Amino acid sequence: MATTSLPQKIVLIGAGNVATHLGTTLYKAGHTILQVYSPHIKSAGALAKKLNAQAITDLKKLATHGSIYIISVKDDVVAELAKQLELKDQIVIHTSGSVEMTALKNTSKNYGVFYPLQTFSKNKAVDFSTIPICIEASNKTTKNTLKRFAKSISKHVEEIDSSQRKILHLSAVFACNFSNHMYTIAASLLTKHQLSFDLLKPLILETADKIKHHDPALMQTGPAIRNDKKTMEAHLKLLSANKKLKTIYKLISEHIKN
Amino acid sequence: MATTSLPQKIVLIGAGNVATHLGTTLYKAGHTILQVYSPHIKSAGALAKKLNAQAITDLKKLATHGSIYIISVKDDVVAELAKQLELKDQIVIHTSGSVEMTALKNTSKNYGVFYPLQTFSKNKAVDFSTIPICIEASNKTTKNTLKRFAKSISKHVEEIDSSQRKILHLSAVFACNFSNHMYTIAASLLTKHQLSFDLLKPLILETADKIKHHDPALMQTGPAIRNDKKTMEAHLKLLSANKKLKTIYKLISEHIKN
Repeated sequence: MATTSLPQKIVLIGAGNVATHLGTTLYKAGHTILQVYSPHIKSAGALAKKLNAQAITDLKKLATHGSIYIISVKDDVVAELAKQLELKDQIVIHTSGSVEMTALKNTSKNYGVFYPLQTFSKNKAVDFSTIPICIEASNKTTKNTLKRFAKSISKHVEEIDSSQRKILHLSAVFACNFSNHMYTIAASLLTKHQLSFDLLKPLILETADKIKHHDPALMQTGPAIRNDKKTMEAHLKLLSANKKLKTIYKLISEHIKN
Repeated sequence: MATTSLPQKIVLIGAGNVATHLGTTLYKAGHTILQVYSPHIKSAGALAKKLNAQAITDLKKLATHGSIYIISVKDDVVAELAKQLELKDQIVIHTSGSVEMTALKNTSKNYGVFYPLQTFSKNKAVDFSTIPICIEASNKTTKNTLKRFAKSISKHVEEIDSSQRKILHLSAVFACNFSNHMYTIAASLLTKHQLSFDLLKPLILETADKIKHHDPALMQTGPAIRNDKKTMEAHLKLLSANKKLKTIYKLISEHIKN
């Protein structure tokens, strides 16, 4: 198989947040979206309409003339879904941070991973050009095709193998999922005391902004890094009615101190 | 005492990050900085020079003709320092999130709190105009003076009493200190595996950016909120050599699920 040229003929398997943002970006970049698959006709239909594609709810109706088949579904159903596909030499990729590339090995001889390292939400546009796209492929030709494909939408394309990707994904859980949960805890404390979450927004944005040019370890502030026991004890007292939050506060403070 | 008019004559007690950023902003806004106190002449001298003020290292040399005395030192030494000051009716304030206003009650009859809700780092400029400034005062005249004073540098001035301020400060620890520590953990995982922290930066910035217009509770993504046990188990396996990180991962994931 020669390196496939642009534009690609895409079949999108999945219609969630990643599929929606990625599909929209690919469509705008000039790629053709042939089909959007989802078991739910409403989801497949809505996205397909936006992308000028066909909506399907049955994998038996999958187009055979696609050049790249993108599986963009929940991490824990990628492998299961891949088993239901039978392709020849068309490229099949998934977009998951945590799933082995080899989950696709029986689907086509040309397979790979196309992992956009970003968090995608409904109704919030993202600029794909700045998103790191982590590429892995079963062979060199597929890798080159995927790299060129990724570069059609992002300036930041990296070759990352499955074991590195696992570490990246784990790190992303801390940096994104867990930090967002810290925001959630803060917001709930404020709400409980009739204070507006707006008060914290400049602080949250500044804390994140710092990492653009600074090592977060050197930017740590607050009572734990100062080992300000009096303040930490006062905080634990405020949390005394909430055992779980108290445990979280203690544990993270201990980890900051060490 | 009548409401003092602008510009104020400021005595700055402290020369750390908050004192530096606040002092610089006040100076640029047209207030006069009379003195900068620090026990370390190098710190006092460097900041005083920038602010066209006198550097002092002995509290006995404190000017008596200031209109507002700002104690901007580490939370755990505010009360101790306040005890060493003797003012008449000049306003004395501290800038701490966690210290009771009454820590200043013996220093002057006009006292209060001026808490800028932001994280300040050396060598990183911040735009004070967007920072919420939380005001509390021992009497109405002082409150009005402080409000006008705060409004000379910020568009976001709020009356917040000591008990609310404690909750705000606790929330800020979660939203800022703890989320920054999550970035630190992520960065250390990446470094350990020869991956660049740059890969995570767009993700961190986007995660924070979301809270501008969305409730973080509704924006939660990742394996925990999906209850994706397989991925969480794989993550815990990757962390098996680090018991503390494993405990943190488990605890926060549990808290997200519930």
